[in-house]
Amino acid sequence: MVRRVDRRPAAVVSFASMIHSVEWRGGAIVLLDQRLLPNQEVYRVYRDHRAVARAIRDMVVRGAPAVAAAAAMAIALAARGGRGTRRNFDNACNRFAPLATTAAHLPSAIERMRRAFAAIEDRAPDIVDEVLLQEALSIRDEYRLNNQLLAQYGESLLPRRGTILTHGNAGTLASCGYGSALGVVRAAREAGKRPSVLVAETRPCLEGARLTAWELKRDKIPVTVIADGMCGHFFQSGKIDAVVVGADRIAANGDTASKIGTYTIAVLAAHHGVPFYVASTLGSIDEGRATGDAIPLEQRPAHEVTRVLDDSIVPRGVKALHPAGDLTPGKLISAIITEHGVAKQPYKRSLARLLTRAASAANASHRSAGARSHRR
Amino acid sequence: MVRRVDRRPAAVVSFASMIHSVEWRGGAIVLLDQRLLPNQEVYRVYRDHRAVARAIRDMVVRGAPAVAAAAAMAIALAARGGRGTRRNFDNACNRFAPLATTAAHLPSAIERMRRAFAAIEDRAPDIVDEVLLQEALSIRDEYRLNNQLLAQYGESLLPRRGTILTHGNAGTLASCGYGSALGVVRAAREAGKRPSVLVAETRPCLEGARLTAWELKRDKIPVTVIADGMCGHFFQSGKIDAVVVGADRIAANGDTASKIGTYTIAVLAAHHGVPFYVASTLGSIDEGRATGDAIPLEQRPAHEVTRVLDDSIVPRGVKALHPAGDLTPGKLISAIITEHGVAKQPYKRSLARLLTRAASAANASHRSAGARSHRR
Repeated sequence: MVRRVDRRPAAVVSFASMIHSVEWRGGAIVLLDQRLLPNQEVYRVYRDHRAVARAIRDMVVRGAPAVAAAAAMAIALAARGGRGTRRNFDNACNRFAPLATTAAHLPSAIERMRRAFAAIEDRAPDIVDEVLLQEALSIRDEYRLNNQLLAQYGESLLPRRGTILTHGNAGTLASCGYGSALGVVRAAREAGKRPSVLVAETRPCLEGARLTAWELKRDKIPVTVIADGMCGHFFQSGKIDAVVVGADRIAANGDTASKIGTYTIAVLAAHHGVPFYVASTLGSIDEGRATGDAIPLEQRPAHEVTRVLDDSIVPRGVKALHPAGDLTPGKLISAIITEHGVAKQPYKRSLARLLTRAASAANASHRSAGARSHRR
Repeated sequence: MVRRVDRRPAAVVSFASMIHSVEWRGGAIVLLDQRLLPNQEVYRVYRDHRAVARAIRDMVVRGAPAVAAAAAMAIALAARGGRGTRRNFDNACNRFAPLATTAAHLPSAIERMRRAFAAIEDRAPDIVDEVLLQEALSIRDEYRLNNQLLAQYGESLLPRRGTILTHGNAGTLASCGYGSALGVVRAAREAGKRPSVLVAETRPCLEGARLTAWELKRDKIPVTVIADGMCGHFFQSGKIDAVVVGADRIAANGDTASKIGTYTIAVLAAHHGVPFYVASTLGSIDEGRATGDAIPLEQRPAHEVTRVLDDSIVPRGVKALHPAGDLTPGKLISAIITEHGVAKQPYKRSLARLLTRAASAANASHRSAGARSHRR
């Protein structure tokens, strides 16, 4: 018996593509307020880059690629309509730089915007406007494309049917595109497989329960929410066939900084002999770090633990801790899935090989773009 | 520098003893409403045993010993004032029997009430009243005493100073006394050690964040709340010196059914070489079960996962699972701490030895009670 929904993989794609977490519309930035999901679907319009910075700080938009794309658009916005002086532009960049967390996306997006600006800062305002906007959009579109590519590599690792455990939200919302971990699941579905997803709710901010469940429900991919502490029990019961999670930053040896709670799941997966996959674009790889030991992990405010959706759950005066991320050693990771292929242990070699492949692909496309522009 | 509070261990005892989760007061049962903690401290008075059954179902009172003590008192209440017919009494027992969960406490308490009633059912109403009440109170007082005894054994396993991770609430509230896991921490403090406690919030019902934090704060024992998924990170950071948790039921080989999430922590402790202790009275040991495989685990309603304190956190229509407990294999447990001593691997032998010791202690006390009554 083939269920109707499985015969229409195209519908899945269009469903996923209907989520617009970070958009540019008529000279303004539109952000889907991720804090209000799943109960309300609210799009907020921003015409001032400072308000976008506040939105990032307040977690209206979250997920390293989505934050970086929103910041790039906001920097473009700040320089529009003749306001593109060097000083204005630098101020805008400097407003977003301190918002960088463990992930490399935001610093790298700001750097790209700086380079784009440097190339055209003396040109007419409408050219400045256009170039900065195009650069911001192409940053976002690259995230989307790279997620789709890595998802193709990743889906081949998944069984024809089975239950995938994921954590946090490495999905469309986080990546303003197809999703990394959830992209892998989507691609498996489009390839005719029948994945079902178990998602850990991901306290304290409940990205799994609120966001991942929302995305997958829209895509009609079967999803069930469990509390974080239950993961061990479901591994033990043989209910989990594979784990796929996202990453914030990956050291050269594969050590992976990711949403807090990921490491707990990695230990459980290793203990039960279940494959544990990290799905992440190469932009997360920090070649300069031999291991993950020195990757800075963001410490979030304690009230995110002491409160749930504004209700206090601990006695007044009791302390709480809230590291936002944790570190999963490369040795606990079965494979790292990227847009240029799948890296396996030892990661020092396999990740370096993928980065080389990416660099030569970039050079080739640069050369051919150069050739095209010469032909013009 | 010695902090003032450490020099007054006696104050700790009196603080702990101020918590009255299950009391008998002037012909009524008084329950501390554990659902409202830590924000409100509300004591509810019950004069009807059916209302107590509802309170158990609604989790006004929770924790296997506290539930069993409340049920025993309610059975005594049902038979008071001349209502102690066989039919009334059986009806009352039958009302509580289906409320039994994974733990052995409630069935065993009901059985004790049945035996007490059988011995005096033809006697005058005031004798029936008195005997049943005394039996119910002695069930509760035994839980208290046994917790104090096991805590003495357990504290010797803890370091002079260090951080103890615990999960759920195996404390005064759950045991209407000194607490099992928290009893061990309290005894360490009273012995002049300086334990501090890291408690996992214990989703979905947040017993760790709400109840354990509340108890320990009252006792001025340093306590910090973390989200369940963070446990791995704090093991990895070397911040946890030992784990102490409670148990619902223990098979002959040491396999331990306990609050959901316990197994996840046991795997993490084993992975990091940190001792993992189960603190539980011998009443939890189910000698008839060779292993834990067949121990029934309570399945709680999904809304406890999909909601937090009445706020929905998942999209409407998304499923959730909620096993209330999980199973930790004996091989992951460093020691099982009981009121008759500490059992170590292999548990089949060590637990049997403790049960034999308990049985001969009970026989000896029975013989001396017999001798006393003969002397009368």
